[in-house]
Amino acid sequence: MAKVGIVMGSKSDFDVARPAVEILKKFGVETEVRVISAHRTPDEAHAYAKSARERKIDAIIAVAGKAAHLGGVLAAYTTLPVIGLPVQTSMMGGLDSLLSIVQMPAGVPVATVGVNAGLNAGLLALQILAVRDESIQKGLEDYKSALAEQVINDDKTLSL
Amino acid sequence: MAKVGIVMGSKSDFDVARPAVEILKKFGVETEVRVISAHRTPDEAHAYAKSARERKIDAIIAVAGKAAHLGGVLAAYTTLPVIGLPVQTSMMGGLDSLLSIVQMPAGVPVATVGVNAGLNAGLLALQILAVRDESIQKGLEDYKSALAEQVINDDKTLSL
Amino acid sequence: MAKVGIVMGSKSDFDVARPAVEILKKFGVETEVRVISAHRTPDEAHAYAKSARERKIDAIIAVAGKAAHLGGVLAAYTTLPVIGLPVQTSMMGGLDSLLSIVQMPAGVPVATVGVNAGLNAGLLALQILAVRDESIQKGLEDYKSALAEQVINDDKTLSL
Amino acid sequence: MAKVGIVMGSKSDFDVARPAVEILKKFGVETEVRVISAHRTPDEAHAYAKSARERKIDAIIAVAGKAAHLGGVLAAYTTLPVIGLPVQTSMMGGLDSLLSIVQMPAGVPVATVGVNAGLNAGLLALQILAVRDESIQKGLEDYKSALAEQVINDDKTLSL
Amino acid sequence: MAKVGIVMGSKSDFDVARPAVEILKKFGVETEVRVISAHRTPDEAHAYAKSARERKIDAIIAVAGKAAHLGGVLAAYTTLPVIGLPVQTSMMGGLDSLLSIVQMPAGVPVATVGVNAGLNAGLLALQILAVRDESIQKGLEDYKSALAEQVINDDKTLSL
Amino acid sequence: MAKVGIVMGSKSDFDVARPAVEILKKFGVETEVRVISAHRTPDEAHAYAKSARERKIDAIIAVAGKAAHLGGVLAAYTTLPVIGLPVQTSMMGGLDSLLSIVQMPAGVPVATVGVNAGLNAGLLALQILAVRDESIQKGLEDYKSALAEQVINDDKTLSL
Amino acid sequence: MAKVGIVMGSKSDFDVARPAVEILKKFGVETEVRVISAHRTPDEAHAYAKSARERKIDAIIAVAGKAAHLGGVLAAYTTLPVIGLPVQTSMMGGLDSLLSIVQMPAGVPVATVGVNAGLNAGLLALQILAVRDESIQKGLEDYKSALAEQVINDDKTLSL
Amino acid sequence: MAKVGIVMGSKSDFDVARPAVEILKKFGVETEVRVISAHRTPDEAHAYAKSARERKIDAIIAVAGKAAHLGGVLAAYTTLPVIGLPVQTSMMGGLDSLLSIVQMPAGVPVATVGVNAGLNAGLLALQILAVRDESIQKGLEDYKSALAEQVINDDKTLSL
Repeated sequence: MAKVGIVMGSKSDFDVARPAVEILKKFGVETEVRVISAHRTPDEAHAYAKSARERKIDAIIAVAGKAAHLGGVLAAYTTLPVIGLPVQTSMMGGLDSLLSIVQMPAGVPVATVGVNAGLNAGLLALQILAVRDESIQKGLEDYKSALAEQVINDDKTLSL
Repeated sequence: MAKVGIVMGSKSDFDVARPAVEILKKFGVETEVRVISAHRTPDEAHAYAKSARERKIDAIIAVAGKAAHLGGVLAAYTTLPVIGLPVQTSMMGGLDSLLSIVQMPAGVPVATVGVNAGLNAGLLALQILAVRDESIQKGLEDYKSALAEQVINDDKTLSL
Repeated sequence: MAKVGIVMGSKSDFDVARPAVEILKKFGVETEVRVISAHRTPDEAHAYAKSARERKIDAIIAVAGKAAHLGGVLAAYTTLPVIGLPVQTSMMGGLDSLLSIVQMPAGVPVATVGVNAGLNAGLLALQILAVRDESIQKGLEDYKSALAEQVINDDKTLSL
Repeated sequence: MAKVGIVMGSKSDFDVARPAVEILKKFGVETEVRVISAHRTPDEAHAYAKSARERKIDAIIAVAGKAAHLGGVLAAYTTLPVIGLPVQTSMMGGLDSLLSIVQMPAGVPVATVGVNAGLNAGLLALQILAVRDESIQKGLEDYKSALAEQVINDDKTLSL
Repeated sequence: MAKVGIVMGSKSDFDVARPAVEILKKFGVETEVRVISAHRTPDEAHAYAKSARERKIDAIIAVAGKAAHLGGVLAAYTTLPVIGLPVQTSMMGGLDSLLSIVQMPAGVPVATVGVNAGLNAGLLALQILAVRDESIQKGLEDYKSALAEQVINDDKTLSL
Repeated sequence: MAKVGIVMGSKSDFDVARPAVEILKKFGVETEVRVISAHRTPDEAHAYAKSARERKIDAIIAVAGKAAHLGGVLAAYTTLPVIGLPVQTSMMGGLDSLLSIVQMPAGVPVATVGVNAGLNAGLLALQILAVRDESIQKGLEDYKSALAEQVINDDKTLSL
Repeated sequence: MAKVGIVMGSKSDFDVARPAVEILKKFGVETEVRVISAHRTPDEAHAYAKSARERKIDAIIAVAGKAAHLGGVLAAYTTLPVIGLPVQTSMMGGLDSLLSIVQMPAGVPVATVGVNAGLNAGLLALQILAVRDESIQKGLEDYKSALAEQVINDDKTLSL
Repeated sequence: MAKVGIVMGSKSDFDVARPAVEILKKFGVETEVRVISAHRTPDEAHAYAKSARERKIDAIIAVAGKAAHLGGVLAAYTTLPVIGLPVQTSMMGGLDSLLSIVQMPAGVPVATVGVNAGLNAGLLALQILAVRDESIQKGLEDYKSALAEQVINDDKTLSL
C-alpha cells in the first residue's frame, strides 16, 4: 500500500495543498496530512521526517511560503523523496518561496514544482510511486489521456 | 536493474550533467546519456520519452538552459518522473532556465532541482529508485552519513 | 489568400488571443484558432506545426503562460514564422512566460511580443504577410495613420 | 531579390549583430548594415525607417542594449516587420534591453528574440522572407535538417 | 516666465501626470500638457521636442509605461532637461517602464523619478527652474517646510 | 559662474564619478568633488547639503552603491536639484543602488540616471545649468552634434 | 526598564508597525512610537537617533518603504541596534524597500526583517533586550512554546 | 564575558564570515566558529542552537548561501538573536540567499544583513552585546568615529 505525507508549514497553506491530497486520494493512495512548521515546531518536523520511512511513507510533499525551509528541513532527516511545493506570496509572486525551496545545497535535493502547483505535487508523488506500482502507472496513463481528451474537447468547442 | 536516462539539450551542458551521471554510476545504476534537443531534434525527444518505459528507464533527468523546454517536452510523452536540471545562464544567473522548467502547467509536473545542481538531480533519481530498491535506499543512508561526516570533519579542522 | 494559425495552450488564454484574431479578421485574413497544449496534447501540437505549411498557414501565433513551451514546440516542427504571445501570470507579472518564450536556443527563433499583447501579435502577423501582399501593407499604413489620428485626437480633447 | 536592414545602436553591438548578417549572406539575402542611434542620430533613424520600403528592404533587425529604443523608434516609422535583438548588459544580464524592446505599446509591435541571439534574429528575418520566397523556405528546411544532424552527431559522439 | 511641458504617451497616463501639473500650477508655472506617443505619433514627438526651446519651454516631463521610450525620444531632439516619469505596470510593478527610461545610453540623459511619482516629477522641474528663479526657490523652501510640518503634525497626533 | 558638487559615498566610487567631473570641466563649470558618506559621515553630508546654495552650488551629483542613501540624504537638506548616480554592484547589476535612489517618497525627488552612467550625470547637470546659461546651452547643442557626428562616422567606417 | 523606539517614515506605515508595538507592550517593554521621515524631517531623525541612548532607548525599529532610508539614517547617528522593517510596495512586492534597507555599506549595519514583518521586528527587539534581561528571555521562551502549541493545535484540528 | 557563535553552512563560506570573526576578536569578544550544515548535519545544528544559551553564547551569526536555511533552523531552537549573513551566489547576486534568510515566518525572526556583509554581521552582534556591556558600547562609538575619520581623510586626499 502506497502512502504519501503532505506537510504544510501553516494551516493557511491548505488551499494550495488540497489538489495534491485530492489526486492522491483519487488514485487510492493513503495520505497523511499534517501541519508542521520548520521554525515553530522543529522537533515535530524532525520526528516526522526521521520516522517517515518506518511509518511506511513513500514520499513527502512539503508546502511552504516565503523563507520556505520546510522541504529542506524534512529532507535533512530522510532519504525519502521530498517534493517542495512553493506557496505564492506578495514578494514577486512567490519567487522567495521558490528560491528557498529549489536552491538546495549539493547532497540534499528537494524536488520542486511550480508556485501553487498543488496538483503537480500530487502527480509527481504518484509518478514516484509508479516506479514500483503498476496500477498507479496505469492510472497515470489514463489520467494523461483524460487530460488530452479535455484539451481536445476544449479545442472542438471553441466558439469564434 | 535500475536505469536512468540523462538527456541534455546541448553537448555543452555536459559539465552540468556529469555529477548526476557519476553519482548514479557510483550507486550501480545504469545510465543512458543522450544529447537530444527539444527544438532541434524534437522527433528524437518524443521517441525517447515515448519508448523510455519500454527500455526499462525508471526516471529521466533533463538538462537544459535558457528557454529550457526539454523537461516539459519529455514529460509530455511519458508518465515516468522527469527531473529538470536548469543550466546557469547570463540571464539573472539562470532564472530563465529555472522558470522555464519549474512553472509547468497543471497535469504535467517536472521535478526541478537548483540551477547547475547536477549532483542533486542524480540523488533525486536515486531517491525515486529507492522507493522500490532497498539497496539503493541503504546506499543513500550511507551517503547521507558520509555527507555529515565530511561537514563534521570540516568543522573539526577549521583553523582560526 | 493569407491564413494565420492562432494556437493557445489553454482555453483560458482566449481573452489574450482575442485581439489578435479580431485584427486579423478585420484585415480579411483567414484565421484558424485552436486549443492545443504543448504538454497535454503534444501529438496535436506536432501534427499541427508539421502540416501547417500544407494547410496554407503563413504564420502561427502561439499563446501561452508560465513555462510557456508552446511557441518553441511549434517552432521545432516548422520553418514558418512563429509569434510567441506570453500570458500574464502571478509570477512577476508574467516574466516566467516571457523568458520561457523569448530565450530560445540558437537555430529556432520565436518572434516574441509583450506580455498579454494580443493586438501586437496580430499586427506582427500582418506585417509578415505584407511582405508579399500589397493590400495588407496598404491596410497597415492606414491602420498606422488611424492610430496616430486617435492619439492626435486624445491630445486635442485633453481637458485640464 | 530579398533585402534585410541590420541596424545597431552602437558600433560596439556589432559582435551581437554579426551572426545575423552572416546567416543572411549565406542564404544569398542582401544586407544593409548600419550604425544608427535612436538617441544620438534620431533623424537618421527616422529617415532610414521611412525610406526602408522604397529601398526594397523587407525586414529590419534592430540591435540595441540598455534603454533599447531603436527597434521601437524604427517601428514607429515603418510597417515593415522590425526584429528586436536585445544586447546583454550588466543589468540582470540584459533584462533592461529585453523589456525595453519587447514591451511595446498596443499598435506597434517589435518581434523580439533572445538576449544576444543574433543568429535567431537572422533566421527570423529569413522565415519572414520565406513567406514569399520558396527558395529561402527550402533553404530553411535544409538548415533545420542540418541543425538536427549536428545534434544527432553530438549525441553519437558523446563519450562517457 | 517659466514653462514646463508635460507629455504623456497615452491619455490613460493622465492620473500619473496630474500631481506634476498641479504642483507646477500651484507654483505659478505655465504648463503645456500634451498626449504625444513616441511610437504612434513620432513626428509630433520630434516636432515637439525640436521646437520646445523656441516655445520657451524650460523642462519637459515625459510620462510613459512599459517599453517607455517617450523620454528618450524627446531627449534625442532637445538639450532641455527631460524628466522621465515611469508608469506602474503589471510587469514587476513597472520595472519595465523604469529600466526603459533610466538606462539611457551615454550622451543622452533622462532625469528619472520613481514609478508613478508624479509629484516628484513636478518638484524636480521646479528645482530645475529655481536654478534661475529665486521666487520658485523660495517657494520650494516653503514647500519643504510645509512637508516637514505635516510629518511633525502626524507625529504629534499619532494615537497609540 | 556655474558650480556643481559631485559627492561620492566612498573613494572607490571615483571611477564612476570621473566622466561627470570631466564633462563639467570641459564645459568650464567649476566642480567641487567630495567623499562624504551618508552613513559614516552624516554630519558632513548634512552640512554639505545645507550650505550648498550659499557656496553657490547649482546642482549636486550624488554617487553611491548598494543601499544608496546619499542622494536622498542630501536632497533632504536642500532644494537644489540632486542627481543620483547609482553604482553597479553584484546584486543584480546594481538594481539595489538604482531602486534605493530612484524610489524616493513624494516631496523629495532625486533625478536618477542609469547605473554607472557618470557621463549622463554630468550632462544632466549641464542641462540644468543651461536653463539660465546660454553658453552652456550652446555647448550642449555642439556636444549633441558631435555625438551625432561620431555615430555617423562609425556608420560610414563600418567594415563588413 | 527596557525601552524600544519605533519610528515610521509615514503615518501610513502604522499598520505594518502595529504588531511590533503590540508584542513589545505585551512583554511590558516601554515603546516610543514616532513618525519621523528621513527625507522630510531629517533634523528630527538625527536628533532622535543621537539622543536615543540618553533617553534610555535600547533598540530602534525603523519602518519604511520604497527608497527606505530611515533605518540607515538612524543607524548613521547611533550605535544602538537598528532594526529595519521594509514596507510592501507595488515594486516587486517591496523588493525596493528590502534592498534599500538591508544592503547597507560596511560599518553601519541595519538588522533587517522580512517585508511587512512587524511582529518579527518586535520579537527581534525583545531578543536583543533579553541579552541583559532574564524576564524577557523567559517570556520569549514561553512565547516560543505558545507558538509551537498553536501549530500543534492546528495540526490536530486539521479536518480532511 | 561576551561570546558570539559564528556558524557557517560550508567551509567555503569562511571568507564571508572572516570579517565578522575579526571585528569580534578586535573587541575582545569570544568567538565560537563552527561549520554546521542545516541540511547535512541537522542534529548538530539543533544541538548547537539548543545548548547555545547554556554555553553562554549571546548571539549567533549564521552564514549561508542559496536555499540558506541555517539561520532559520538555528532560530527555531533558540530565543537568542540570530544574525543571518547571506552569501553571494550566481543567482542574481545572492537574491536567493537573501530572500531565504530574511523572509522568515511570523514568530521566528532572523536579523539579516547585506549579501557578503561579514563586517556588518559582526558589528550588529557587537551592538546587541552593547545593550548590556558599556565597554563594547564605548568601543562601537570609537569605531564609528574612526570610520568617519577615514572617510574624512579620503575626502581630503582625493586628488583631482
